Amino acid sequence: MTDLTLEEKASLTSGSDTWHTTPIGEAVPALTLSDGPHGLRRQAERGDALGLGNSVPATCFPPAVALGSSWDAHLAHRVGAALAREACALGVDVVLGPGVNIKRSPLCGRNFEYFSEDPHLTGVMGAAVVTGIQSLGVGACVKHFAVNNQETDRMRVSADVDEQSLREIYLPAFERIVREAKPYTVMCSYNRINGVHASQNRWLLTEVLREEWGFDGLVMSDWGAVNDRVAALEAGLDLEMPPTGTDEEIVEAVRSGRLPEAVLDLAAGRLLELVRRVEGRASFEGWDLDAHHELAREAARASAVLLKNDGDVLPLRQGQRVAVVGELARTPRYQGGGSSHVVPTRLDNAWEALGRPAFAAGYRLDGQPDAGLSREAVAAASEADVTLVFLGLPEAAESEGFDRTTIELPAVQVALLREVAEVCPKIVVVLANGGVVSVAEWQEHASAILEGWLLGQAGGSALADLLTGAHSPSGRLTETIPNRLADVPSHLHFPGGDGHVRYGEGRYVGYRHYDTLDADVAYPFGHGLTYSRFTYSDLDARETGSDEWSVEVTVTNTGERFAHEVVQLYVAFDEERPSRPRHELRGFAKVGLEPGDSERVRFALTGRDIAQWSVSRKGWRIDAGAFTVEVGASSRDIRLRAELTSGGDGYAAPLDRMSTLGEWLAHPEGSRALKQLLQGAPGLDRTDPALLRLAMGIPLAKFATFGIGLTSEVVDGLVAAVRGDG
Amino acid sequence: MTDLTLEEKASLTSGSDTWHTTPIGEAVPALTLSDGPHGLRRQAERGDALGLGNSVPATCFPPAVALGSSWDAHLAHRVGAALAREACALGVDVVLGPGVNIKRSPLCGRNFEYFSEDPHLTGVMGAAVVTGIQSLGVGACVKHFAVNNQETDRMRVSADVDEQSLREIYLPAFERIVREAKPYTVMCSYNRINGVHASQNRWLLTEVLREEWGFDGLVMSDWGAVNDRVAALEAGLDLEMPPTGTDEEIVEAVRSGRLPEAVLDLAAGRLLELVRRVEGRASFEGWDLDAHHELAREAARASAVLLKNDGDVLPLRQGQRVAVVGELARTPRYQGGGSSHVVPTRLDNAWEALGRPAFAAGYRLDGQPDAGLSREAVAAASEADVTLVFLGLPEAAESEGFDRTTIELPAVQVALLREVAEVCPKIVVVLANGGVVSVAEWQEHASAILEGWLLGQAGGSALADLLTGAHSPSGRLTETIPNRLADVPSHLHFPGGDGHVRYGEGRYVGYRHYDTLDADVAYPFGHGLTYSRFTYSDLDARETGSDEWSVEVTVTNTGERFAHEVVQLYVAFDEERPSRPRHELRGFAKVGLEPGDSERVRFALTGRDIAQWSVSRKGWRIDAGAFTVEVGASSRDIRLRAELTSGGDGYAAPLDRMSTLGEWLAHPEGSRALKQLLQGAPGLDRTDPALLRLAMGIPLAKFATFGIGLTSEVVDGLVAAVRGDG
Repeated sequence: MTDLTLEEKASLTSGSDTWHTTPIGEAVPALTLSDGPHGLRRQAERGDALGLGNSVPATCFPPAVALGSSWDAHLAHRVGAALAREACALGVDVVLGPGVNIKRSPLCGRNFEYFSEDPHLTGVMGAAVVTGIQSLGVGACVKHFAVNNQETDRMRVSADVDEQSLREIYLPAFERIVREAKPYTVMCSYNRINGVHASQNRWLLTEVLREEWGFDGLVMSDWGAVNDRVAALEAGLDLEMPPTGTDEEIVEAVRSGRLPEAVLDLAAGRLLELVRRVEGRASFEGWDLDAHHELAREAARASAVLLKNDGDVLPLRQGQRVAVVGELARTPRYQGGGSSHVVPTRLDNAWEALGRPAFAAGYRLDGQPDAGLSREAVAAASEADVTLVFLGLPEAAESEGFDRTTIELPAVQVALLREVAEVCPKIVVVLANGGVVSVAEWQEHASAILEGWLLGQAGGSALADLLTGAHSPSGRLTETIPNRLADVPSHLHFPGGDGHVRYGEGRYVGYRHYDTLDADVAYPFGHGLTYSRFTYSDLDARETGSDEWSVEVTVTNTGERFAHEVVQLYVAFDEERPSRPRHELRGFAKVGLEPGDSERVRFALTGRDIAQWSVSRKGWRIDAGAFTVEVGASSRDIRLRAELTSGGDGYAAPLDRMSTLGEWLAHPEGSRALKQLLQGAPGLDRTDPALLRLAMGIPLAKFATFGIGLTSEVVDGLVAAVRGDG
Repeated sequence: MTDLTLEEKASLTSGSDTWHTTPIGEAVPALTLSDGPHGLRRQAERGDALGLGNSVPATCFPPAVALGSSWDAHLAHRVGAALAREACALGVDVVLGPGVNIKRSPLCGRNFEYFSEDPHLTGVMGAAVVTGIQSLGVGACVKHFAVNNQETDRMRVSADVDEQSLREIYLPAFERIVREAKPYTVMCSYNRINGVHASQNRWLLTEVLREEWGFDGLVMSDWGAVNDRVAALEAGLDLEMPPTGTDEEIVEAVRSGRLPEAVLDLAAGRLLELVRRVEGRASFEGWDLDAHHELAREAARASAVLLKNDGDVLPLRQGQRVAVVGELARTPRYQGGGSSHVVPTRLDNAWEALGRPAFAAGYRLDGQPDAGLSREAVAAASEADVTLVFLGLPEAAESEGFDRTTIELPAVQVALLREVAEVCPKIVVVLANGGVVSVAEWQEHASAILEGWLLGQAGGSALADLLTGAHSPSGRLTETIPNRLADVPSHLHFPGGDGHVRYGEGRYVGYRHYDTLDADVAYPFGHGLTYSRFTYSDLDARETGSDEWSVEVTVTNTGERFAHEVVQLYVAFDEERPSRPRHELRGFAKVGLEPGDSERVRFALTGRDIAQWSVSRKGWRIDAGAFTVEVGASSRDIRLRAELTSGGDGYAAPLDRMSTLGEWLAHPEGSRALKQLLQGAPGLDRTDPALLRLAMGIPLAKFATFGIGLTSEVVDGLVAAVRGDG
C-alpha cells in the first residue's frame, strides 16, 4: 500500500467506467464486472447502464425464481459453475449475483431474481450458486445487501424493520452464504435500513458483515447507490460503481484529516486483494453452447412446479389430440427485465418442442382484447382431447425498477381460458410469470396447472419434457400462492410511502404467517406434485450432543415412475397463543427414486435452528424445553413428527428491582429469599385468582407503594442477596 | 410560589398517602382522589392500594365497554355528572377516569374499562364523561396516557409503535378530550412508549400534550408508574401517586443544580392550580340512590347490543312459556376486576327482574363440569317456548393486571347451550363479558343474541326491559367481533415479549383492518339490531368552506316501534391498493324515532377528518383529490355514499437532487426546465414501457452515472432553477 499515492488509492475505491474497476499502470489491472445472476450480461462496448438490451450472447439459465424451485443445491452449484465458465470466456472477473433478498410481497418487481420467501432455502441455494461461480476462480457478488424487498422508491425508501425480523428473516441468507461460501464480494442495496442508507450503514457493512460473520471480501455499491463517498467508505463500502468522478472528495477528506487514511487503505487494500484473488481465474475460448443449453434445459425441467393434476391429466398420452393455445407457447417469456436481462444463445419454445401440434395464439400479449384470436383458440380446443393453455404475465408487467400492483393474470387470458374450458374437457394451464400469480379465480377451469415461472432459454423444451412425461415434474413452491393479494401479510404495509416502508408483519413472512394463523392459501410453501407418489417412514430424531440433534427419515417411491421427492424438515413450536412462527424450514433434500426404491435421508440440527433473536440480549436465545421436528412434502403436508428437547442456552436474566413478583417466585434463590422475608407479612388474598395474577405481574420495586413491608431498601437488599453480593 | 420552601414545593409533587395529595398547613388543602370511571371507589379508610374490595357503596354505572356501546354522548355526560354528584357527596375532588385507551386486542384484560377500537368514538364518549364529571367542579382524570393497550408486563413493556399509528389511532381520543373537554388532570400510563416510560416521556407529556394540544392541567402518575422522580418531573409529570418517600431526591437535585428550580415550580404550581380549580366544587349530603340507580338502568338499557334476532324471537311475547338458564342470570357479572371495582348501592339480577320465571343454573361459574346442573337446565328448557340462556365470562377471566389468552366462552357453557338448544326451538343467548367473546362456534344454536357486556348494578333490570320489549335495544358494537382470535390484526404481535410489544398492524386496528382487507367478521363495528327498521334518504354532502364540508341525511323509522338508530358517518378512500384504512368513522348520531317519523341528521367535516399524519413533514397532511362520505348503520352496512373533493393543503415537496425523474416530470416548472435541458439528448427508449417505469423511479442525481447529459452540476443547476434561486 505504501507504494501507492493517496490519489491512486482513492481511485481504486471507484470504477474506471460502468463495468470496470480502476487500473493502476501495470501493477493493478482493471477488473471486469458483469451482471449475471442467471446468465452473463457482458456489454459489448462501453454503453450507458440503462441500455440493458445490448450484450453479447450468453446462456440464459433459469432465473432464481425457477432455479430456487428446484430445491436442488447441487444443480444450483452446476449452474453457477457454468456461469463461471462463460464469465471466463467473456473475460469477466466478477459475476454480479446471486440475488438473495427475501420475497416479502409477491408484488416486488424483482422477485424473479430472488429465490424464496424463506431465508434457509434462499441461503442454501445462494451459497450453492456462489461456490459454483467461484469454483473457477471467478468472483461472485451476493446482493442486494440488505432488506431490498421492493423496487418502489428503492433508492430512497427506508425499510423500517425491527431487529428480530432482520436477524431471523432478512439477514440469515446473507449470513449463511458469507460463512459457508465465502463470496469474494457483496453488493450493498440502494435502500435505507431504519433510516440509514445501506451504502452508509456501518452497522450493516462492518459490524454485522465483517465483525460478526467474518466476511473478508470487498463490498461494492449497487449501481448508483452511493450518496456520500466519505460516509460510505467509513461505513465499510469499498468500491463505488459506476464512478461518479468524486474520488477527489476522498483525497480531500484524508488531507483535511476528516477521514483517517487507514480507512482508505482498508478499502483500497480490499480491491487489491480482490485483484489478487481473481488473478488465478481460469481462461477459456468460448464454451460448449450445446452443453450449456442442455444444462439450462435440465435446470428448467427441475424447476417447473406441477401445482395440480386432477385425474392425472398429465402427462399427455400417446394418441391424444393435443391443442396448444396461447401466444406464450410460441413467444415464451423466459426471463425478467432490468439488469439481469440476458441475450440468449438460442431460444426454445414449447410449441415447437412439442412437435408443433394444433396451435392458436388466443390472446394478444399487450392485453388488448381480440375476438378473432379467441375464436380461433376455441375452434382449436374444440377439436382436441387435451388443450394446453399457456398463460402468463407480459414483459411489461414485471421488471427491476417497479413493483406490480396486482397478482392477477391479464383479464383477456382468463377470459380465454373460460371460453376454451367450455369446449374442451381436459385443460392444462402452463404458466409463465416471474412473480406469483393468483389462481383462485380460474383454477376450477383447469385440470392441471404447471407453473413454469421464467425458465430461461431452454424452458420451452423443458416444458415439453414434462408435459409429455419424458420427465416427471420435480419443482416445489419456494413461496406461498395466496388466494388473494389481500391475504399477503405485508399487504397493508407494502410498498409504504412518505419515504418509509414499515415491515409491520415482522417475522411472519410467507408461510410463517399463513401457517401460524392456519389461514387458507391456494398452494402452500413447499408444494409440488410429481408423476409418482412417496411415503415417509421410520422417523428417528435424537440428541447427538449439547443442542445438537440428528433427524433421519426413510422416503419411498410407491408410485410407478422415477421421480424426485423434496423432503422438507421444519422445526415447530406448538403454543396456545403464538409467540413465534409456528414452524420454520431448517432442512431439505431432493431425492430421485425409481419405483419401489427407498432412501434414508439425514439432517442435522443445532441450537441455532431453534434459536430466536433476543433484542434485550442482542444475540441469539435458545429456550429450554420441547420442540417438534416435522418432516413432510410441504409446509401443509407434514407426514411425520417427533419431539425433541433442548436444555436451552443456560441464560437466566438476573433478578433486579424491576423483576416481577412472578419472576422472583419462579427463581429458586429469589423465591427462597422473598418467602423468608415475607413470613408473617399480611400478604395477598390468595383466594382471589384475578388479584393474584395481577400481583404476579408487578415489579417487586413497585410493592414499596403498597405497604406490605417491601420498602425500597428491602427490595435492594433482596436483589443484593440473590446476586450473591449482599 | 415564593412563599413556599423548596421542601414544601417538592412535597406537592407527590401524594401524602394513597388517595390524597399533600397539604401545606391551612393554605393548601389535601385533595382526595378516587378510582371511579364508572362508579366511585372511595376507600373507607387508609388502606393498601391492592385491597380493591373495600370501598364505601356507590352507584355502579355501566363500565365503558357498555357505556361506549350506547353511542350516546349526552347519556355519557349525564353519567359523568352523576359520578360527580357522588364524588361531591363522598368528598372526592378528582375522579380517576375515564379510561380512553384503544382496544387493540380483544385479549386486553382491561378492555371493559375502555370504549372502543375507534379513536373518534372513544374521544367523543370520553369527552362527554369528562364534561359531565367536571360540570360540578370535580376534576376528571383522563387515563392512561398513552398506548397502554395491554396488561401483560404493563409496568415495563415498551409499546413500539410508529409515529403515524400513534397520531392516528392511539393519541386522537386524548387529543380530542384535552382540546374539547379540558380535563383538570391526565394520568400517565405505566408502560414505555418506543423505549421511554410514559412517566418520563417529555415528548408525550410536554411537547404533545401541553405544547401541541394546549393542556393546562396537571399530569399525575398511574399508581406506581414513576421510576425516576427527577426525570419524571423534567418530562412534565407533576404528581407522583402514591408517594414513595422520595421528595428529598427532588430537593437534592435542585440544590445540586441538576434540576432547575423552575421545573419544580411548574409542577408545584400546577398542583396549586388544581387545588384552586376544585375549591369551587359542589358539596352534597348523599345523593338520590333511586335516581342514580334508574340512570344506571337507563344507561345499561342503551348499551346492550342485539347482535342477532332471527325470526324476531325477541321481544318475548305475552303468554310464552319462558325458561331462564344460566347462573349469570341470578348472579350477574356487572363490572370488571381491579382498580375500577365498585361496591354497588344495590344489585339487580335479570331473573328476578323478569319475574322469576322457571330457572336452572345450568353450569358452575368456576368452569367445572356439573352434569346435574345441565340436566336441570335441559329439563327446564324442554318445558319452555323460549329459553333465555345467560352465558359469559367468570370474574377470574378478565381483570386489570393480566390479559386473556382466549376469546372463547367457558367450554361448559357452550356445551350447555348445545344441549339446551336440542330441546327448545327458540334460544336467546344473553351475554355478560367485558372483552369480546367469539360467537362463531355456537351462534347457530341461538335465534337471538343480546350482548350485555358488563352493565353495572342495574344491568339485570335493564336486560329484562329489553327482553320483554318494554324498550328496544339500541346499543351498537364499538369493536368488531371477529370469527376467531387469529383474525385479529394484532394477533401475532400481542402481547409481545422480551420487554417489547411491536404494534405491527400499525393503523389497521379493528374495522380499519377487516374492512380494508374485506375480511369476514362475525359482527362488524357499528352493528346492532333494534325492534324496528330504519331507512336513509336524501344524502346531501357539500363543501361549506375551504376544506369544510357538511353532510346531511334523513333517517326514517319504517318499523312499528319506537327505537333508536345510530347513524354513522365514515370517510372513505377507494384505492386499487390500499395505502390507508379504507374508511374511518368521523361522526355519529343516535336518533330516537317513533314509527313513521323522520329526522334530518347533520354532520360537519373538516380537513383534519381526511388528513393523515406525515412522518416526513411531522404534521398532518391533506391530499388534494376526491374522497367518499359514507352514511350507514355499521361499517359494513353503508346505505348512502357521496363524493367530495379536497383542494389539499397546498403543500408540495420541493424538488431536489433526490427527487425522481417521475417527480420532476410531474412538477410543472421542473418538467419544463428538464425538458428544455434534455432537448436533443439521446434520451430513453420510450417504446419499452418497463424501462420507462424503471427510469421514472430513479432520483435525478443518479442519472449522473448513466451518461445522458445529466451531470451532477447540471442537476444542481436544475434544482436551483426550479427553486427560483438559480
